[in-house]
Amino acid sequence: MSRADLSRSACTLARAAEIVGDAWTQVILRELFLGARRFDDIQRATGASPHLLSQRLKRLEAEGVVARRAYSARPPRRDYRLTERGLDLWPVIVALKTWGDRWLGDGAPPPVSLTHIACGRPTAPRLTCSECGERLGARDCRADLSEAMLRERGAAR
Amino acid sequence: MSRADLSRSACTLARAAEIVGDAWTQVILRELFLGARRFDDIQRATGASPHLLSQRLKRLEAEGVVARRAYSARPPRRDYRLTERGLDLWPVIVALKTWGDRWLGDGAPPPVSLTHIACGRPTAPRLTCSECGERLGARDCRADLSEAMLRERGAAR
Repeated sequence: MSRADLSRSACTLARAAEIVGDAWTQVILRELFLGARRFDDIQRATGASPHLLSQRLKRLEAEGVVARRAYSARPPRRDYRLTERGLDLWPVIVALKTWGDRWLGDGAPPPVSLTHIACGRPTAPRLTCSECGERLGARDCRADLSEAMLRERGAAR
Repeated sequence: MSRADLSRSACTLARAAEIVGDAWTQVILRELFLGARRFDDIQRATGASPHLLSQRLKRLEAEGVVARRAYSARPPRRDYRLTERGLDLWPVIVALKTWGDRWLGDGAPPPVSLTHIACGRPTAPRLTCSECGERLGARDCRADLSEAMLRERGAAR
Protein backbone atom coordinates (compact mmCIF):
# COMPACT_ATOMS: atom_id res chain seq x y z
CA MET A 1 0.00 0.00 0.00
CA SER A 2 1.23 3.48 -0.72
CA ARG A 3 0.43 6.34 1.63
CA ALA A 4 -2.61 7.29 -0.45
CA ASP A 5 -4.01 3.83 0.08
CA LEU A 6 -4.43 4.33 3.80
CA SER A 7 -7.58 6.21 2.84
CA ARG A 8 -9.05 2.95 1.53
CA SER A 9 -8.12 0.83 4.51
CA ALA A 10 -10.79 -1.07 6.44
CA CYS A 11 -9.20 0.58 9.47
CA THR A 12 -10.85 3.81 10.55
CA LEU A 13 -7.69 4.77 12.43
CA ALA A 14 -5.69 4.48 9.21
CA ARG A 15 -8.26 6.63 7.40
CA ALA A 16 -8.18 9.20 10.21
CA ALA A 17 -4.37 9.20 10.17
CA GLU A 18 -4.40 9.78 6.45
CA ILE A 19 -6.33 13.03 7.06
CA VAL A 20 -4.77 14.39 10.25
CA GLY A 21 -1.62 12.28 10.55
CA ASP A 22 0.72 15.10 9.71
CA ALA A 23 2.75 17.16 12.16
CA TRP A 24 1.94 20.54 10.64
CA THR A 25 -1.74 19.72 10.36
CA GLN A 26 -1.73 18.96 14.08
CA VAL A 27 -0.02 22.26 14.92
CA ILE A 28 -2.53 24.10 12.71
CA LEU A 29 -5.39 22.33 14.50
CA ARG A 30 -3.86 23.41 17.83
CA GLU A 31 -4.05 26.98 16.63
CA LEU A 32 -7.66 26.66 15.50
CA PHE A 33 -8.54 25.20 18.92
CA LEU A 34 -6.77 28.15 20.55
CA GLY A 35 -9.14 30.41 18.64
CA ALA A 36 -7.20 31.60 15.59
CA ARG A 37 -9.40 32.04 12.53
CA ARG A 38 -7.55 34.17 10.02
CA PHE A 39 -4.89 32.84 7.70
CA ASP A 40 -2.35 35.47 8.76
CA ASP A 41 -2.91 34.80 12.45
CA ILE A 42 -2.52 31.05 12.02
CA GLN A 43 0.58 31.60 9.94
CA ARG A 44 2.20 33.92 12.48
CA ALA A 45 1.41 31.71 15.46
CA THR A 46 2.63 28.48 13.84
CA GLY A 47 5.49 29.77 11.74
CA ALA A 48 4.21 27.74 8.77
CA SER A 49 5.03 29.05 5.30
CA PRO A 50 2.03 30.46 3.39
CA HIS A 51 2.31 27.62 0.88
CA LEU A 52 2.36 24.91 3.53
CA LEU A 53 -0.47 26.49 5.47
CA SER A 54 -2.62 26.97 2.40
CA GLN A 55 -2.09 23.37 1.34
CA ARG A 56 -2.96 21.97 4.78
CA LEU A 57 -6.04 24.19 5.18
CA LYS A 58 -7.31 23.18 1.72
CA ARG A 59 -7.06 19.53 2.67
CA LEU A 60 -8.81 20.11 6.00
CA GLU A 61 -11.56 22.02 4.20
CA ALA A 62 -11.95 19.23 1.62
CA GLU A 63 -12.30 16.73 4.45
CA GLY A 64 -14.92 18.81 6.24
CA VAL A 65 -12.70 19.52 9.24
CA VAL A 66 -12.67 23.29 8.69
CA ALA A 67 -15.10 25.55 6.85
CA ARG A 68 -14.35 28.94 5.35
CA ARG A 69 -16.73 31.74 6.18
CA ALA A 70 -16.93 35.24 4.80
CA TYR A 71 -16.35 37.78 7.57
CA SER A 72 -16.11 40.84 5.32
CA ALA A 73 -17.84 41.54 2.02
CA ARG A 74 -15.76 44.54 1.03
CA PRO A 75 -12.94 43.73 0.76
CA PRO A 76 -13.94 40.07 0.46
CA ARG A 77 -12.33 38.19 3.36
CA ARG A 78 -12.81 34.70 4.67
CA ASP A 79 -11.70 32.99 7.81
CA TYR A 80 -11.47 29.39 8.96
CA ARG A 81 -13.62 27.70 11.56
CA LEU A 82 -13.58 24.18 12.90
CA THR A 83 -16.71 22.30 11.95
CA GLU A 84 -18.37 19.84 14.35
CA ARG A 85 -16.22 17.17 12.74
CA GLY A 86 -13.19 19.34 13.38
CA LEU A 87 -14.12 20.19 16.98
CA ASP A 88 -14.40 16.47 17.60
CA LEU A 89 -10.64 16.17 16.96
CA TRP A 90 -9.99 17.87 20.30
CA PRO A 91 -9.19 14.57 22.08
CA VAL A 92 -6.50 13.81 19.47
CA ILE A 93 -4.81 17.17 20.02
CA VAL A 94 -5.16 16.96 23.81
CA ALA A 95 -3.73 13.42 23.83
CA LEU A 96 -0.69 14.59 21.86
CA LYS A 97 -0.23 17.58 24.17
CA THR A 98 -0.52 15.38 27.24
CA TRP A 99 2.10 12.97 25.93
CA GLY A 100 4.37 15.83 24.92
CA ASP A 101 4.04 17.49 28.32
CA ARG A 102 4.89 14.25 30.08
CA TRP A 103 7.72 12.93 27.94
CA LEU A 104 9.16 15.88 26.06
CA GLY A 105 8.88 18.64 28.65
CA ASP A 106 12.14 20.44 29.36
CA GLY A 107 11.34 21.36 32.95
CA ALA A 108 9.48 24.46 31.79
CA PRO A 109 5.79 24.84 32.70
CA PRO A 110 3.45 23.22 30.15
CA PRO A 111 3.07 25.63 27.23
CA VAL A 112 -0.71 25.34 27.42
CA SER A 113 -2.65 24.91 30.67
CA LEU A 114 -6.25 23.76 30.53
CA THR A 115 -8.98 24.77 32.96
CA HIS A 116 -12.30 22.96 33.06
CA ILE A 117 -14.75 25.81 32.77
CA ALA A 118 -17.63 24.03 34.53
CA CYS A 119 -15.68 22.95 37.63
CA GLY A 120 -13.25 25.85 37.53
CA ARG A 121 -10.13 23.80 38.19
CA PRO A 122 -6.93 23.23 36.20
CA THR A 123 -7.50 19.89 34.53
CA ALA A 124 -5.45 17.08 33.03
CA PRO A 125 -7.92 15.37 30.68
CA ARG A 126 -7.65 11.60 30.85
CA LEU A 127 -9.20 8.63 29.07
CA THR A 128 -11.79 6.80 31.10
CA CYS A 129 -14.15 3.88 30.50
CA SER A 130 -17.56 4.91 29.16
CA GLU A 131 -19.13 2.12 31.24
CA CYS A 132 -17.50 2.20 34.67
CA GLY A 133 -15.66 5.52 34.63
CA GLU A 134 -12.27 4.06 35.58
CA ARG A 135 -9.13 5.46 34.03
CA LEU A 136 -7.91 3.54 30.97
CA GLY A 137 -4.41 2.87 29.71
CA ALA A 138 -2.84 0.57 27.15
CA ARG A 139 -2.90 -2.46 29.44
CA ASP A 140 -6.53 -2.09 30.48
CA CYS A 141 -8.34 -3.02 27.27
CA ARG A 142 -8.69 -6.04 25.05
CA ALA A 143 -9.01 -5.38 21.31
CA ASP A 144 -11.19 -7.50 19.02
CA LEU A 145 -10.91 -7.14 15.27
CA SER A 146 -13.80 -7.10 12.80
CA GLU A 147 -13.99 -9.57 9.93
CA ALA A 148 -13.06 -6.86 7.41
CA MET A 149 -10.07 -5.85 9.47
CA LEU A 150 -8.88 -9.43 9.86
CA ARG A 151 -9.24 -9.96 6.11
CA GLU A 152 -7.25 -6.85 5.25
CA ARG A 153 -4.44 -7.75 7.60
CA GLY A 154 -4.24 -11.25 6.22
CA ALA A 155 -4.28 -10.02 2.64
CA ALA A 156 -1.71 -7.23 2.97
CA ARG A 157 1.72 -8.16 1.76
CA MET B 1 10.11 27.32 10.54
CA SER B 2 10.72 24.23 8.51
CA ARG B 3 9.25 20.90 9.55
CA ALA B 4 12.45 19.98 11.36
CA ASP B 5 12.08 23.07 13.53
CA LEU B 6 8.91 21.80 15.15
CA SER B 7 11.23 19.72 17.33
CA ARG B 8 12.62 22.96 18.79
CA SER B 9 9.25 24.59 19.43
CA ALA B 10 8.29 25.73 22.93
CA CYS B 11 5.12 23.76 22.28
CA THR B 12 5.19 20.20 23.56
CA LEU B 13 2.36 19.30 21.18
CA ALA B 14 4.48 20.45 18.24
CA ARG B 15 7.39 18.37 19.51
CA ALA B 16 5.13 15.35 19.98
CA ALA B 17 3.67 15.83 16.49
CA GLU B 18 7.15 15.95 15.05
CA ILE B 19 7.76 12.45 16.44
CA VAL B 20 4.42 10.67 16.02
CA GLY B 21 2.41 13.03 13.81
CA ASP B 22 2.77 10.87 10.75
CA ALA B 23 0.08 8.65 9.26
CA TRP B 24 2.23 5.55 8.79
CA THR B 25 3.81 5.94 12.20
CA GLN B 26 0.31 5.96 13.69
CA VAL B 27 -0.68 2.81 11.80
CA ILE B 28 2.54 1.11 12.93
CA LEU B 29 1.79 2.13 16.53
CA ARG B 30 -1.69 0.63 16.13
CA GLU B 31 -0.08 -2.64 15.19
CA LEU B 32 2.32 -2.57 18.14
CA PHE B 33 -0.64 -1.92 20.45
CA LEU B 34 -2.44 -4.87 18.87
CA GLY B 35 0.51 -7.01 19.92
CA ALA B 36 2.70 -7.34 16.79
CA ARG B 37 6.39 -7.46 17.61
CA ARG B 38 8.22 -8.81 14.60
CA PHE B 39 9.15 -6.74 11.60
CA ASP B 40 7.52 -9.17 9.16
CA ASP B 41 4.28 -9.30 11.15
CA ILE B 42 4.05 -5.51 11.34
CA GLN B 43 4.81 -5.26 7.65
CA ARG B 44 2.16 -7.79 6.66
CA ALA B 45 -0.53 -6.30 8.86
CA THR B 46 0.05 -2.71 7.79
CA GLY B 47 1.02 -3.18 4.16
CA ALA B 48 3.97 -0.81 4.66
CA SER B 49 6.98 -1.32 2.40
CA PRO B 50 10.07 -2.70 4.17
CA HIS B 51 11.90 0.57 3.54
CA LEU B 52 9.12 2.71 4.98
CA LEU B 53 8.64 0.44 7.98
CA SER B 54 12.34 0.27 8.72
CA GLN B 55 12.64 4.05 8.55
CA ARG B 56 9.68 4.64 10.87
CA LEU B 57 10.79 2.01 13.39
CA LYS B 58 14.31 3.47 13.47
CA ARG B 59 12.88 6.87 14.29
CA LEU B 60 10.61 5.44 17.00
CA GLU B 61 13.57 3.59 18.48
CA ALA B 62 15.73 6.74 18.42
CA GLU B 63 12.95 8.59 20.25
CA GLY B 64 12.60 5.88 22.89
CA VAL B 65 9.09 4.91 21.81
CA VAL B 66 10.05 1.35 20.88
CA ALA B 67 12.96 -0.81 22.01
CA ARG B 68 14.48 -3.72 20.14
CA ARG B 69 15.00 -6.92 22.06
CA ALA B 70 16.78 -10.09 21.09
CA TYR B 71 14.35 -13.00 21.07
CA SER B 72 16.68 -15.51 19.45
CA ALA B 73 20.46 -15.81 19.70
CA ARG B 74 20.92 -18.28 16.84
CA PRO B 75 19.98 -17.09 14.36
CA PRO B 76 20.17 -13.58 15.85
CA ARG B 77 16.67 -12.09 15.80
CA ARG B 78 15.22 -8.98 17.37
CA ASP B 79 11.70 -7.78 17.83
CA TYR B 80 10.11 -4.47 18.72
CA ARG B 81 8.36 -3.58 21.95
CA LEU B 82 6.68 -0.42 23.06
CA THR B 83 8.54 1.19 25.95
CA GLU B 84 6.67 2.93 28.78
CA ARG B 85 6.96 6.10 26.75
CA GLY B 86 5.47 4.25 23.80
CA LEU B 87 2.66 2.63 25.81
CA ASP B 88 1.73 6.10 26.99
CA LEU B 89 0.81 6.98 23.38
CA TRP B 90 -2.28 4.78 23.67
CA PRO B 91 -4.63 7.76 24.20
CA VAL B 92 -3.38 9.33 20.95
CA ILE B 93 -4.11 6.16 18.98
CA VAL B 94 -7.47 5.62 20.71
CA ALA B 95 -8.49 9.24 20.08
CA LEU B 96 -7.72 8.84 16.36
CA LYS B 97 -9.63 5.56 16.21
CA THR B 98 -12.60 7.08 18.01
CA TRP B 99 -12.72 10.02 15.60
CA GLY B 100 -12.32 7.72 12.61
CA ASP B 101 -15.10 5.41 13.83
CA ARG B 102 -17.43 8.35 14.31
CA TRP B 103 -16.75 10.39 11.19
CA LEU B 104 -15.22 8.05 8.63
CA GLY B 105 -17.13 4.85 9.31
CA ASP B 106 -18.81 3.37 6.27
CA GLY B 107 -21.66 1.69 8.13
CA ALA B 108 -19.48 -1.34 8.82
CA PRO B 109 -18.84 -2.36 12.43
CA PRO B 110 -15.81 -0.59 13.95
CA PRO B 111 -12.68 -2.44 12.78
CA VAL B 112 -11.43 -2.67 16.36
CA SER B 113 -13.69 -3.11 19.40
CA LEU B 114 -12.32 -2.42 22.85
CA THR B 115 -13.35 -4.21 26.02
CA HIS B 116 -12.37 -2.87 29.42
CA ILE B 117 -10.80 -5.92 31.03
CA ALA B 118 -11.52 -4.87 34.64
CA CYS B 119 -15.23 -4.15 34.17
CA GLY B 120 -15.72 -6.67 31.38
CA ARG B 121 -17.79 -4.40 29.16
CA PRO B 122 -17.28 -3.05 25.62
CA THR B 123 -15.98 0.45 26.17
CA ALA B 124 -15.76 3.72 24.29
CA PRO B 125 -12.87 5.51 26.02
CA ARG B 126 -13.60 9.19 26.54
CA LEU B 127 -11.75 12.21 27.86
CA THR B 128 -12.83 13.30 31.30
CA CYS B 129 -11.73 15.95 33.77
CA SER B 130 -9.05 14.77 36.23
CA GLU B 131 -10.70 16.90 38.94
CA CYS B 132 -14.44 16.38 38.67
CA GLY B 133 -14.70 13.39 36.34
CA GLU B 134 -17.08 15.06 33.89
CA ARG B 135 -16.71 14.38 30.20
CA LEU B 136 -14.62 16.98 28.33
CA GLY B 137 -14.92 18.32 24.80
CA ALA B 138 -13.48 21.24 22.88
CA ARG B 139 -15.92 23.74 24.34
CA ASP B 140 -15.43 22.73 27.96
CA CYS B 141 -11.91 24.02 28.61
CA ARG B 142 -10.13 27.33 28.70
CA ALA B 143 -6.51 27.36 27.52
CA ASP B 144 -3.85 29.58 29.08
CA LEU B 145 -0.47 29.96 27.41
CA SER B 146 2.90 30.03 29.14
CA GLU B 147 5.28 32.96 28.72
CA ALA B 148 7.56 30.90 26.46
CA MET B 149 4.64 29.90 24.28
CA LEU B 150 3.37 33.48 24.02
CA ARG B 151 6.87 34.66 23.10
CA GLU B 152 7.28 32.03 20.39
CA ARG B 153 3.93 32.83 18.84
CA GLY B 154 4.66 36.53 18.84
CA ALA B 155 8.10 36.01 17.35
CA ALA B 156 7.14 33.59 14.58
CA ARG B 157 6.76 35.18 11.21
